[in-house]
Amino acid sequence: VDNLSRGRESFLASLANHPDFQFHAVDCADYDALAKVVSGLATPVTNIWHLAANSDIPGGIADPGIDLKDTFLTTFQLLKLARDLKIENFHFASSSAIYGDLGDLAVHEDVGPLQPISNYGAMKLASEAQIRAAVEAYLGRADIFRFPNVIGVPATHGVIVDFVQKLKATPDELQVLGDGTQRKPYLHVEDLVDAMLFISDRADDRYNVYNIGPTDIGVSVQFIAETVRDRVSPEARIAYGTSNRGWVGDVPRFNYSTARLSGLGWAPQLGSREAVIKAVDQIARQEAVD
Amino acid sequence: VDNLSRGRESFLASLANHPDFQFHAVDCADYDALAKVVSGLATPVTNIWHLAANSDIPGGIADPGIDLKDTFLTTFQLLKLARDLKIENFHFASSSAIYGDLGDLAVHEDVGPLQPISNYGAMKLASEAQIRAAVEAYLGRADIFRFPNVIGVPATHGVIVDFVQKLKATPDELQVLGDGTQRKPYLHVEDLVDAMLFISDRADDRYNVYNIGPTDIGVSVQFIAETVRDRVSPEARIAYGTSNRGWVGDVPRFNYSTARLSGLGWAPQLGSREAVIKAVDQIARQEAVD
Repeated sequence: VDNLSRGRESFLASLANHPDFQFHAVDCADYDALAKVVSGLATPVTNIWHLAANSDIPGGIADPGIDLKDTFLTTFQLLKLARDLKIENFHFASSSAIYGDLGDLAVHEDVGPLQPISNYGAMKLASEAQIRAAVEAYLGRADIFRFPNVIGVPATHGVIVDFVQKLKATPDELQVLGDGTQRKPYLHVEDLVDAMLFISDRADDRYNVYNIGPTDIGVSVQFIAETVRDRVSPEARIAYGTSNRGWVGDVPRFNYSTARLSGLGWAPQLGSREAVIKAVDQIARQEAVD
Repeated sequence: VDNLSRGRESFLASLANHPDFQFHAVDCADYDALAKVVSGLATPVTNIWHLAANSDIPGGIADPGIDLKDTFLTTFQLLKLARDLKIENFHFASSSAIYGDLGDLAVHEDVGPLQPISNYGAMKLASEAQIRAAVEAYLGRADIFRFPNVIGVPATHGVIVDFVQKLKATPDELQVLGDGTQRKPYLHVEDLVDAMLFISDRADDRYNVYNIGPTDIGVSVQFIAETVRDRVSPEARIAYGTSNRGWVGDVPRFNYSTARLSGLGWAPQLGSREAVIKAVDQIARQEAVD
């Protein structure tokens, strides 16, 4: 189920003929439409995987109504659906953005205080809070997956898409927001999906909260810029800004702990560096810069 | 501004003739009505004191839509108002319910994880998250007051009102939900107001988070039941339940740290015990049991 605000049905072409697959173009914030689709299914739904959200952080700062509807109210209505239709299990794509800027502090799952600095992070934290209360009242189980920066294809936005498109437009120069020193961990989407399935299979509390990410400290924006430049337009000059933040709500450094997930026995196939190199190549192909 | 869902305009009778006072019966979740009132004022608003919420925790568990509108969307619309009208300062009545059940852990402002177990607590945490992000984007300053259990008059609901009304109906027996051992700190509303004004005056960060409460460990439900019984119907028998929780979303014990507020220089006039004794007497008069 997706409202196709950013996704496209063509992204699902490889699944279209699978006998167990159905796609419905419905907004998860529209309870009546959602309930109609789900109650009409031949077999009862036992698990909700809630990945719907506005993923455009600067967009959500410009208009908080977007995060309200797409990130918060989707959760509210999906929980209502779980309650009304007695769907026991709820899996939720949360975000490292709930933590805000904790400086050098190790960001593990039980850390406090939680001070999200973007409206996106705020609505993800707000969603987690609702889910936690629902576990107390009627859900059988919930998994909270706190996503890192995720890259891969199909890609609709994000730093790599941005750099690739900029270089297509002006092949001799790449302008970078910020001074390029921001360092973040990146996970490839294939590893992300693997981690979610692993947690839902192996974790056994009623309420499971996991940071998902690589085990390294991440790569800098400069590394990403250079990787894109080398792949797309090797002669281009890279021009950096002066701030160590790219935009309001951006966190410059992030010491993201994935020790809990490692303890459960999971490890990614690709570290941040390899994930960036792979995603840059995939996105370059997607954007047809060859 | 109040929607009078629980409050009554008569509670404000003593202020009605004050030259600086106005009351508007408007729902804070109704942006257009709110903006009309506030833009129509002769002097610009510089501070929003946001105390609007559904305070009926079991009611919010039965129908999450109540907490959504009255607790969460009021915050969303008041923040939108602050942004649109450039109102710099935002003071918010949050709650100790955002912490959930932390067992014996000292509940200080920076503790984690935050796992509210009621929808009320979830929507208060969700409101805090929105406010924190707004400080990053456009607010000049925000104060977060995390309320304990607050008692006093005028009282519309809560454990003391409940016990007084029960004893009015059946003067020979008081039935208590739970086994009476739940122990919580209680603050008298007069101390609460004093603490909020103190924090807004003395704290000097852009984002200030304070637990407000007495410095003691609180009193048991049994103490409250006996105090009400002694005041209202001294011969009554008290019948307890067997659970150490009164209802879903109730936290049986609570080690609430107010060290940050003490460090700022504030102390309450009344401890939990004295606050309960005073409030029981006030509520008995309000309910006309003399």
